[in-house]
Amino acid sequence: MLTTETVSQQTQSGFEGPEKLLEIWFKGPTSLHQITQSQWQNILDIVKCKILSTIKNDHTTAYLLSESSMFVYEHKLILKTCGTTTLLSAIPTILELVSSISLIVDSIFYSRKAFFFPEKQEFPHGVWSDEVEYLDSIFKGFNTAGYVIGKINGDHWCLYVATPMCNSDLNLIGPSSLGKEIANGIGGKIEKEITLEILMLDLDPEKMQKFWKSSSKDLKVFRINKLNIYKDAQVDDHLFDPCGYSVNGLLDNFYYTIHVTPELHCSYASFETCVPFDNLNDLVLRVVDIFGPAKFSTTLFSMNCPMNLDCAVDGFKCRDRIIHSLPGWDLMFCHYEK
Amino acid sequence: MLTTETVSQQTQSGFEGPEKLLEIWFKGPTSLHQITQSQWQNILDIVKCKILSTIKNDHTTAYLLSESSMFVYEHKLILKTCGTTTLLSAIPTILELVSSISLIVDSIFYSRKAFFFPEKQEFPHGVWSDEVEYLDSIFKGFNTAGYVIGKINGDHWCLYVATPMCNSDLNLIGPSSLGKEIANGIGGKIEKEITLEILMLDLDPEKMQKFWKSSSKDLKVFRINKLNIYKDAQVDDHLFDPCGYSVNGLLDNFYYTIHVTPELHCSYASFETCVPFDNLNDLVLRVVDIFGPAKFSTTLFSMNCPMNLDCAVDGFKCRDRIIHSLPGWDLMFCHYEK
Repeated sequence: MLTTETVSQQTQSGFEGPEKLLEIWFKGPTSLHQITQSQWQNILDIVKCKILSTIKNDHTTAYLLSESSMFVYEHKLILKTCGTTTLLSAIPTILELVSSISLIVDSIFYSRKAFFFPEKQEFPHGVWSDEVEYLDSIFKGFNTAGYVIGKINGDHWCLYVATPMCNSDLNLIGPSSLGKEIANGIGGKIEKEITLEILMLDLDPEKMQKFWKSSSKDLKVFRINKLNIYKDAQVDDHLFDPCGYSVNGLLDNFYYTIHVTPELHCSYASFETCVPFDNLNDLVLRVVDIFGPAKFSTTLFSMNCPMNLDCAVDGFKCRDRIIHSLPGWDLMFCHYEK
Repeated sequence: MLTTETVSQQTQSGFEGPEKLLEIWFKGPTSLHQITQSQWQNILDIVKCKILSTIKNDHTTAYLLSESSMFVYEHKLILKTCGTTTLLSAIPTILELVSSISLIVDSIFYSRKAFFFPEKQEFPHGVWSDEVEYLDSIFKGFNTAGYVIGKINGDHWCLYVATPMCNSDLNLIGPSSLGKEIANGIGGKIEKEITLEILMLDLDPEKMQKFWKSSSKDLKVFRINKLNIYKDAQVDDHLFDPCGYSVNGLLDNFYYTIHVTPELHCSYASFETCVPFDNLNDLVLRVVDIFGPAKFSTTLFSMNCPMNLDCAVDGFKCRDRIIHSLPGWDLMFCHYEK
């Protein structure tokens, strides 16, 4: 999505829709819910984005941001920002803030798609090895891993993981152990979680028209019928001026979020959810149908859950299928082209 | 292994044991066996290495080189070179040479471990993105993919694949399709093949002593009992002066090859085989026992074969397990540390 300020820039070059995604798991006797909105805004000032609106339930507060979204759980922070935001620069201040309420980091996951315009990013962003080195300098007592997943000479996705030293043993027995049950470090109980992202490029121009402010009536009809993928969710959305669209949704202790950059020369949409699903392929097909991408990637993170993603998607060719087995986690990356 | 000339250099810094590995599949009405040894030596002059000795059978000629090995099949070339050899620079001349006997390229695979001393390599070698760009400039009509597999901030392995455009569709149904049967492009028949590499670092100093010329008696006893892994193989080996050891073995239409750099500050050994095996884990354990590495990686390429590698290796922790599904191929990369 775009702020008015960045529109003049993007007219000349293009907006960086692809987000930086940071997920931090904390442990300790208190809760992130003790942190006030103005304290979060101080963090977001470093990132260079603003809180537009919030929704909340008993588990989660969802912040709709000027550049994407933030979800705050008791012991988990998910911060996703697009454009030229400086997400990583906020980590030291986040760690200070949570330390003041006696929370410490358990694990972190940082990821992003290959940027459209890496040269426009501010250090340490833009060059993946710089981002990894920056994170390694912060997470010194952790097992850390920086990966480039997919073609370096094509669409790819970058992932950084920092986990506790004691949690680093992978003793796996063949591919069937994907979906195995491992006790994780948080409170000693087995956490089950699955997170799916669908990152879409070169979107259908006709389907993009409704994501401009000038066509906001079309969007109103559309979002009720189509974009509200989970019927019972509590939803917060925003149509940017002159274009761009964001949705946050909460459903029990799960979230989903959608962000759309509709400009034809840099069109991009992302869908992310941790809401459990019966048929993952069906969900992928529904989302892809909304935006009509020429190519897209899926990233499926699974903690102690089977990864039942059939890689066949009608009308697309799967050009890459890569499975990583991380300590306690499995990850499947697929890349599709028409 | 080392030539006398490079010893003085490596005393100051270290020898680059980790090899560059090029495998090219050809198609056409003739055979690579028509190419003479002096024509191959012309190619190897560009790479900067020499033929030391050869063995052959009905299927294959195996060349033991001053820097590693070359295997020539009717329609397949495998060239593996270590040190600061300039392997990629030879590709244009290889393509000219095979073109003169009416062969064309079907697929190529180029891979290497992360270098110990990338700054000592000659362009395009040393920086993976340069190597990928160089190969892309040669293989313009192909589907190409350059991957970094494993941690960019730790041990990793780089792979480049160029396959025919028509062979690029991945329509897979879940992880169980690993080992599926796909007709490949060569002659329309289903080729089955499996290639295993074990790349070992920080080797046991005591086990390294026998790979010095001064202890050649120990090696003679040892190689008969231990290093000759396939009892019926035709074997060609070389102990370098002052140290370093290479073996080529042929068994029917399969090969294996071992290369050892025993110097403590840059110790490295590689084992590669396409000989079919009943128990892959047992083979890995046997090889690891010979060299005593503190860490090692396995790469298992499988064409239309099940990948029955149990990732558990006694005494080691599996730090990475990554599976790539390439068109017609599956690849499993594992990294182990003590």
